[in-house]
Amino acid sequence: MTPLPPGGCIGILGGGQLGRMLSMAAAPLGYRCHIFGPEDPPPAGQVADRVTIADYLDRDALRSFAESVDIVTLEFENVPAGALEFLSHLVPVHPGVKALATTQDRLVEKDFANNVGAPTAPYAAVDSLDDLRAAIAKIGPETGSRAVLKTRRMGYDGKGQVMLDQESDLAQAWNALAGAPSILEGYIPFDGEVSVIVARGLDGSVSAYPPIANRHKNHILDTSTVPAGLNAIQANRAIATATDLAIALDYVGVLAVELFVTGDTFLVNEMAPRVHNSGHWSIEGAVTSQFEQHIRAICGLPLGSMALRGQVEMRNLIGDDVDQVPEILAEPGAHLHLYGKAEVRAGRKMGHVTYVKDGSDIT
Amino acid sequence: MTPLPPGGCIGILGGGQLGRMLSMAAAPLGYRCHIFGPEDPPPAGQVADRVTIADYLDRDALRSFAESVDIVTLEFENVPAGALEFLSHLVPVHPGVKALATTQDRLVEKDFANNVGAPTAPYAAVDSLDDLRAAIAKIGPETGSRAVLKTRRMGYDGKGQVMLDQESDLAQAWNALAGAPSILEGYIPFDGEVSVIVARGLDGSVSAYPPIANRHKNHILDTSTVPAGLNAIQANRAIATATDLAIALDYVGVLAVELFVTGDTFLVNEMAPRVHNSGHWSIEGAVTSQFEQHIRAICGLPLGSMALRGQVEMRNLIGDDVDQVPEILAEPGAHLHLYGKAEVRAGRKMGHVTYVKDGSDIT
Repeated sequence: MTPLPPGGCIGILGGGQLGRMLSMAAAPLGYRCHIFGPEDPPPAGQVADRVTIADYLDRDALRSFAESVDIVTLEFENVPAGALEFLSHLVPVHPGVKALATTQDRLVEKDFANNVGAPTAPYAAVDSLDDLRAAIAKIGPETGSRAVLKTRRMGYDGKGQVMLDQESDLAQAWNALAGAPSILEGYIPFDGEVSVIVARGLDGSVSAYPPIANRHKNHILDTSTVPAGLNAIQANRAIATATDLAIALDYVGVLAVELFVTGDTFLVNEMAPRVHNSGHWSIEGAVTSQFEQHIRAICGLPLGSMALRGQVEMRNLIGDDVDQVPEILAEPGAHLHLYGKAEVRAGRKMGHVTYVKDGSDIT
Repeated sequence: MTPLPPGGCIGILGGGQLGRMLSMAAAPLGYRCHIFGPEDPPPAGQVADRVTIADYLDRDALRSFAESVDIVTLEFENVPAGALEFLSHLVPVHPGVKALATTQDRLVEKDFANNVGAPTAPYAAVDSLDDLRAAIAKIGPETGSRAVLKTRRMGYDGKGQVMLDQESDLAQAWNALAGAPSILEGYIPFDGEVSVIVARGLDGSVSAYPPIANRHKNHILDTSTVPAGLNAIQANRAIATATDLAIALDYVGVLAVELFVTGDTFLVNEMAPRVHNSGHWSIEGAVTSQFEQHIRAICGLPLGSMALRGQVEMRNLIGDDVDQVPEILAEPGAHLHLYGKAEVRAGRKMGHVTYVKDGSDIT
């Protein structure tokens, strides 16, 4: 397979911060980017060669977009499957329809992981209140009687979820999700959460960063730290799990796998078929950033080194955290990344800041 | 002075690789960039929010540009002084008219440096063949009878220069420069060439990278290496020279000063009132890149740390050096930067590659 030559154009579905950072990583490799999505104006458009503002289901717009690019990727896994399917007949799309179909649906995703031999928390499909009662009876005892009811699709940052315990009113919980096809997951009292970001090239080569320790606040990622403080056996096991999933998906690009840590066991929480918030530290903290690595992978270039450049911490700037920007800019070693979003809203990811302690600073 | 708030727009005169890398450094700080210049299409436009393709002397275009931006900077010191003067009445311009006027003219520049106490090679103004004969008589003996005749304006990468020795036909040399106002500089048999890249903030704070060792090939920068292998006294002296010049110019932004090294003496060769090719390594090799530092300085933000992240080498990709890209991409630690130029021409800067050896790798 011939790599995409310099001067080529990469189409990106979604124009948020991930598309923005992908576009900035593509430019030094000689590529131009064309952003496609409904948001007007898209933050990624500020650093992209071209922008199309259109609905994901607008076939005329999709067709023109496909004609203007050499390859398509995405920053957002909830692009309608039909849009990706339509594009994939016109232009190479990475990651492809299979990876998206698997990761868009929590039930399909968990079935897939278990089939690959990557364990998850216990779970059951819930399509009715009776299903929910049966699922609680089955999963409750295994997990100390706490469980989480989640919609199968479109959930993120804690949206579309209800935590249940023995006191919960199941009818009320089921109504809260408005009858959407759902899944009940046993709540695991985990020791911590890590993610593994793995890259797989068009030639099948695979590489990963060391596991990343993630802390959430109000269901939104707050900090990512790497190394994660795992021992070598744990780290290898976490990476092997993510790598197995990438291979089984026949994946091309960067895949993020979120894992619950319970002792030496890693349970797959969810997968994101794209660059991931927990990998933003890699811009300064790794030899090759997740954004460059994704571009390399989908364009058929060799993968870069995913070695660390030090001990790294990334902190998200959510909502009015962005008011801390003057203090952050005054810290000589702080790397600020704002996303070019005009409007500050509670819970909105406005930017992040990364700190790298290099070898000589590490105590 | 209040910093430019996030969301602000920076106007950049010139749309080449320097404008491109400035635009990519402005985005993480929350700024948008508007590129102005005659080149169509400008490589910087691929990663900028807005582009105006117009002549530097088109006043209507300049006025609209000024109205669309909060501040103006430049990637190219040979912007006509009139354009900068015109803009400076409409919008803050950094670096300003004084810095440009000083560095656009080799004679003014050398007078300025000597007045600041920064020595240069011996030189004399040449406006006629008689001037040239007189200058040779004066400078020749001091410098082993070799000297370089250069146009005062618009020279770069060895263009507009003639090397003279005792055998040279002076009339022919003078004719080669077509009667342009010129300067004769004594040719110093230097030990090496270094550059110092210094940043000065709107608040007067000053910071610099360690001196950079530069090697040229065919009068074009080939490699930059840092640290430069100077001893501590030499390094301090070189930095002090550059800092003195920045302060005396009342400079705001990043200033590059090229120096000839002869023992413990540093002679100012030339100054560039902008980010500089010899600082491209700083994207990966320093805590804050020269591009981010320039944006910080002109926008009134605090300067970032200019500490090294390792031993660094940058190599330019000139003309068909760009054919080496597949091999470069296959080196896991090589950082490739292509400039998005469609046409490969001999002597054209197509990109660069940077290697960083971190502390643990340095032997």
